[in-house]
Amino acid sequence: MNRKRKIAVVVTARPSYSRVKTAIQAIKNHPELELQLIVAASALLDRYGSAVNYIEKDGFEIHAKVFNVLEGENLTAAAKTTGIGILELSTVFDNLKPDIVVTVADRFETMATAIAASYMNIPLAHIQGGEVTGNIDEKVRHAITKLADYHFVASESAKERVIKLGEEPDFVYNTGCPSIDLAKDVQISNLDFDPYQKYGGVGAKPDLEKYLVVMQHPVTNEYQDSRRHIEETLKAIDDLKIPTLWFWPNVDAGADGTSTGIRAYREFNKLENVHFFKNMTGDDFLKLLNKSMCLIGNSSVGIRECAYLGVPVVNIGSRQNKRDRGFNVKDVDYNKEEIKQAILKQIENARPQSSDVYGGGDAGEKIADLLSTVPLKFHKTITY
Amino acid sequence: MNRKRKIAVVVTARPSYSRVKTAIQAIKNHPELELQLIVAASALLDRYGSAVNYIEKDGFEIHAKVFNVLEGENLTAAAKTTGIGILELSTVFDNLKPDIVVTVADRFETMATAIAASYMNIPLAHIQGGEVTGNIDEKVRHAITKLADYHFVASESAKERVIKLGEEPDFVYNTGCPSIDLAKDVQISNLDFDPYQKYGGVGAKPDLEKYLVVMQHPVTNEYQDSRRHIEETLKAIDDLKIPTLWFWPNVDAGADGTSTGIRAYREFNKLENVHFFKNMTGDDFLKLLNKSMCLIGNSSVGIRECAYLGVPVVNIGSRQNKRDRGFNVKDVDYNKEEIKQAILKQIENARPQSSDVYGGGDAGEKIADLLSTVPLKFHKTITY
Amino acid sequence: MNRKRKIAVVVTARPSYSRVKTAIQAIKNHPELELQLIVAASALLDRYGSAVNYIEKDGFEIHAKVFNVLEGENLTAAAKTTGIGILELSTVFDNLKPDIVVTVADRFETMATAIAASYMNIPLAHIQGGEVTGNIDEKVRHAITKLADYHFVASESAKERVIKLGEEPDFVYNTGCPSIDLAKDVQISNLDFDPYQKYGGVGAKPDLEKYLVVMQHPVTNEYQDSRRHIEETLKAIDDLKIPTLWFWPNVDAGADGTSTGIRAYREFNKLENVHFFKNMTGDDFLKLLNKSMCLIGNSSVGIRECAYLGVPVVNIGSRQNKRDRGFNVKDVDYNKEEIKQAILKQIENARPQSSDVYGGGDAGEKIADLLSTVPLKFHKTITY
Amino acid sequence: MNRKRKIAVVVTARPSYSRVKTAIQAIKNHPELELQLIVAASALLDRYGSAVNYIEKDGFEIHAKVFNVLEGENLTAAAKTTGIGILELSTVFDNLKPDIVVTVADRFETMATAIAASYMNIPLAHIQGGEVTGNIDEKVRHAITKLADYHFVASESAKERVIKLGEEPDFVYNTGCPSIDLAKDVQISNLDFDPYQKYGGVGAKPDLEKYLVVMQHPVTNEYQDSRRHIEETLKAIDDLKIPTLWFWPNVDAGADGTSTGIRAYREFNKLENVHFFKNMTGDDFLKLLNKSMCLIGNSSVGIRECAYLGVPVVNIGSRQNKRDRGFNVKDVDYNKEEIKQAILKQIENARPQSSDVYGGGDAGEKIADLLSTVPLKFHKTITY
Repeated sequence: MNRKRKIAVVVTARPSYSRVKTAIQAIKNHPELELQLIVAASALLDRYGSAVNYIEKDGFEIHAKVFNVLEGENLTAAAKTTGIGILELSTVFDNLKPDIVVTVADRFETMATAIAASYMNIPLAHIQGGEVTGNIDEKVRHAITKLADYHFVASESAKERVIKLGEEPDFVYNTGCPSIDLAKDVQISNLDFDPYQKYGGVGAKPDLEKYLVVMQHPVTNEYQDSRRHIEETLKAIDDLKIPTLWFWPNVDAGADGTSTGIRAYREFNKLENVHFFKNMTGDDFLKLLNKSMCLIGNSSVGIRECAYLGVPVVNIGSRQNKRDRGFNVKDVDYNKEEIKQAILKQIENARPQSSDVYGGGDAGEKIADLLSTVPLKFHKTITY
Repeated sequence: MNRKRKIAVVVTARPSYSRVKTAIQAIKNHPELELQLIVAASALLDRYGSAVNYIEKDGFEIHAKVFNVLEGENLTAAAKTTGIGILELSTVFDNLKPDIVVTVADRFETMATAIAASYMNIPLAHIQGGEVTGNIDEKVRHAITKLADYHFVASESAKERVIKLGEEPDFVYNTGCPSIDLAKDVQISNLDFDPYQKYGGVGAKPDLEKYLVVMQHPVTNEYQDSRRHIEETLKAIDDLKIPTLWFWPNVDAGADGTSTGIRAYREFNKLENVHFFKNMTGDDFLKLLNKSMCLIGNSSVGIRECAYLGVPVVNIGSRQNKRDRGFNVKDVDYNKEEIKQAILKQIENARPQSSDVYGGGDAGEKIADLLSTVPLKFHKTITY
Repeated sequence: MNRKRKIAVVVTARPSYSRVKTAIQAIKNHPELELQLIVAASALLDRYGSAVNYIEKDGFEIHAKVFNVLEGENLTAAAKTTGIGILELSTVFDNLKPDIVVTVADRFETMATAIAASYMNIPLAHIQGGEVTGNIDEKVRHAITKLADYHFVASESAKERVIKLGEEPDFVYNTGCPSIDLAKDVQISNLDFDPYQKYGGVGAKPDLEKYLVVMQHPVTNEYQDSRRHIEETLKAIDDLKIPTLWFWPNVDAGADGTSTGIRAYREFNKLENVHFFKNMTGDDFLKLLNKSMCLIGNSSVGIRECAYLGVPVVNIGSRQNKRDRGFNVKDVDYNKEEIKQAILKQIENARPQSSDVYGGGDAGEKIADLLSTVPLKFHKTITY
Repeated sequence: MNRKRKIAVVVTARPSYSRVKTAIQAIKNHPELELQLIVAASALLDRYGSAVNYIEKDGFEIHAKVFNVLEGENLTAAAKTTGIGILELSTVFDNLKPDIVVTVADRFETMATAIAASYMNIPLAHIQGGEVTGNIDEKVRHAITKLADYHFVASESAKERVIKLGEEPDFVYNTGCPSIDLAKDVQISNLDFDPYQKYGGVGAKPDLEKYLVVMQHPVTNEYQDSRRHIEETLKAIDDLKIPTLWFWPNVDAGADGTSTGIRAYREFNKLENVHFFKNMTGDDFLKLLNKSMCLIGNSSVGIRECAYLGVPVVNIGSRQNKRDRGFNVKDVDYNKEEIKQAILKQIENARPQSSDVYGGGDAGEKIADLLSTVPLKFHKTITY
């Protein structure tokens, strides 16, 4: 009998974990694969929601932890965090000797995974390439595509784009997005927990019958403006006086602007209907989303999971520019009035239809199957 | 009057220096540009030809030296060298605050320049993107294209390829290759120096009337085979008994195989007609090439400068695969007999015609002019 | 005329800055010295009080900023932070080419300064060696003494200890502690500002007639116990119901335990008389201390500045073990009752007499004078 | 039954390996100890004799390899090599979770071991502290003593010195030097191999009846002079025309000067009686030494092993200043004539008497026994 293929998955942040959880589970369950789970960067840190705790609660063994976040929350620190990530991950890969390394999406520090693996001649799989946004993620995402050997993309347009980038079509697979797998599970579930009791957090504890959810991240290349941006949203929500659950942003150059903006606003304003959470399991978060009236902010959850769930979204600013949309999104600028009006419209409208633009809920299984069968290779040539 | 634009050029290896020397000179001379020259990696090291000495002799002031080569000469060390490069270069960019950073070609460690600059929101120019080879350079080169904001390519087919990669055509410029600028200068020159006296080296000192030149680098993704490869070439040259000037390879994962192969062969074989050089100024090297009967190996000089000069080339193995060729190249495998036969053919044939497939000798000036006029930007979106 | 000596001072944390501020000022003012100020580590970070802001407000030009704090707040991160510090500081020293490097006290990351300087053959001056505490600082402090070429110690017993460590007596100088220079300035000053207005912070705003001050840091080698320790202090203060100003701890492995302890206690308890500050200029902090009834915690300010000022101190736990004391300190264990009783005793007693055990207020000037006259050397031999 | 204690030994260079080999063997054999062997820095590199190959041939399993030598061979690179060493070793210690870490002697990069272990609260044992030389090693050695918890010293005077440094006498053990254990084994052996055949090397192959051995390292703090120093020795040996075996220096800032000096001299001079070796097993080296007429250079082997073996030594320059001597050493300056005269004197004299100043040949066993019984602790206070 053949030795199992060793698949190293590197998770660097809370949102990335949700985005690959079902793939990790499917790799673990697959009879011909051996999972090597590496948790790195902000996924290990309290300040950014300690994804590591959820990973452990989900029953996954962690094979290596890589601390590489250099404090500073400026652009230089982002570069250096990536440099340290390469130093550390190359040691980890040397120890674990994976057959394939899997990297997820487009956060700046995922480049460290891609470089360490490709420079060490380890076949590299990339989940969620081929999408279009419009900030530093854009550069990172497509650069990783050019370093990767296998592409597990989330939509047809992403597949086309990766092929146009000169990748061999035989190694570009539209598996759908694993995050939709999770959405599928919660679609018919109820809100079977008390979020205030289970997750603490600060602020008011509004009634959970009809509520909004907010999740807004800083946008890297508009660093200076992070604080102004978040203030528009804060004012809009403050004005509406609708019960609101607000989720803290994850780390990024600029987090300071956003986080400071929220803290400062809370010092001087009541925000009587708003509760702030630092973190939550993906499942519980989706259950809350699924029962909410509308998601506000710039999270990709609004574009992906909410498309499948049919949850209305007010998407603010440029962060999700050019990503495929289902039937549920209203785009607005960083402007209090626009945000308010869009929220009110979304609440009045009928619930949007579900869309499978990002997959049908079996992406994790598809990815594990492919990882067990793709030919091992780390050598490629552009197709044109 | 406007402040001059600060242009930081990062040189990481001896061959890269030759490839940008005229651009560096043109930037220095340009009335609206201020040159910030950064010398890094193997360009600083004795073992790899100390490009830094030539740079200083050429009269360029060096604004920062970055030591980042981690010893080991294995693939892990290549990854870590890149990680350290990011740590160091981000500090340098923080200090120098360039308006544009220029990175050259596709060596693994150039990725450090590209990541540090792009993550710090500094506009990034890439010289010599869009070409096709077939090893790790291939991944690196196109990944850097996806991180870069301006593309100074060396041929029409390279330009087409960069545009196909989703880059905005307005920012892709076929300047030709600056290395051709140097070739132009020496085309009509004579061999006005004694290479043995000027550059030392070891081995025989054959007569310089009719001679061959050899330059063969290890190929990263065939690491294990480096030694076997070089031995085929050594045996072919040994058999032919034609006067030969052999140039030591530059650093790369695998250098050990190649270098050890040469050293070991010399211990046990006479190589009566072969002299070994560790390094030489680009100018003198081109003069020697220009007067030689044939260049053997896998150096890109054979593909580029020799196309312009009309020097016959026997190109061995996969390293220059799919790069545009002039009229001067015969491709062979790692095989003593094939190599011998090809050399004999090339010597018999008439001197090949000159080709401007890699430019007409004014690339440096064109690049400097563009650097002084392109709009400053570090934000882009894929074109499809 | 001779070139001025370039003196590089590396400041890595808020408390270290207070401890060398007058030396920095005296170096800046000295006609034969040129100040090169380097701000590094937690001194640059919001979370730890942004010493950098005070440094700039004090009118000092910063020659280099070194971000080297690796997030994680565990012991591995402390080691790695030091490693990154060496990488970065050696580049800075290479650029600035100081004649002497000055490092302060005994925080773990100061070892990076000491190693970078001594390995680069730059004469190294150490301020505040020779003292005795009883944690990792103890190892760091004496190891730095063995790397340093000049020793500017703060007391006679420290001087004796450094000499016993095998250092040449000619290069061990009892200058007193520069922090006493600052205390001297505020000794006769009044509380001329409203701390709530000037520094914000959270919690109650008790009357500032008769108040306590608390400052308690985690103790590295009792990592697990940090939270339990702080809770004893929290309960003691909560019970006493005396107006209290509480200062947030600075970074250290274990900060999490202490910080989390404070945060958690505040969630569930009123602490009606307590206000929490994140940071304050050294001057204002000393003014507050000078007018306070008692300082509680384990800060070295209690041992040093308060000795000179004659402020009563309740010193908790092992952190200041074996440091010289004036007439003002009562030592207690991590125990709510002991802490309470000691505070009540200190409040009842007459104000302690001033002591010059840590210097008479001219340490900064003495240090600058010595830096201008000591022979430059980086070579030494143990004296026995 | 109790779990075995895990003992991590970090070997960073060829000479350090010889110095702890019997301790490593004894730890491996000890019923209550589990060996964790870490090979790092120049011990992994071809250029410096690949200690790693000998370690593997000796049958030791290697638990981690740490590449941390940054190329440059200047002082900045030495500092950075140490910084990278801390980054890497802290990861290794995190993975292996040793009960005690063992570091050897005083090379600059051993500081990385000491800092990583002590900062991570792992008990640290130091072999060969307390000695006196007179260069950067001097600073490093005593600084490591101040970081270490257990001291395994090689002589009575070293023991006294460590105690004077404020270490608790209960934790300072004169075990003798493990290198003497090896010398004991070869003392009665014959030259049972042909060194030219077994180890290759370059140069003449003089008869091995009556021969000299040379081993001279660069001295860090006289960096500029390395080349001049080695030339004096080269000329002295060249003049004497006595058969000579010359051993290549190991890495150090300055290696370039020494190595370049040797290479250059060989280009222009015949050195008809000299053979150059790059490396040799410790055993074979000692057998050669034991049968030689005299050792020339500045290796500590001359001071230690040769004291026990009774081999005459001409010790050049300051590198071994103030180390205890047996009856076998003649000290000279960097001066061709002095060196020649001293060699001739040593050859004429009777063979010196054996001395046990560095131990009686059972140091390895003593160290292993102590490691199995010392109380585990990482907390200490200076004794005065």
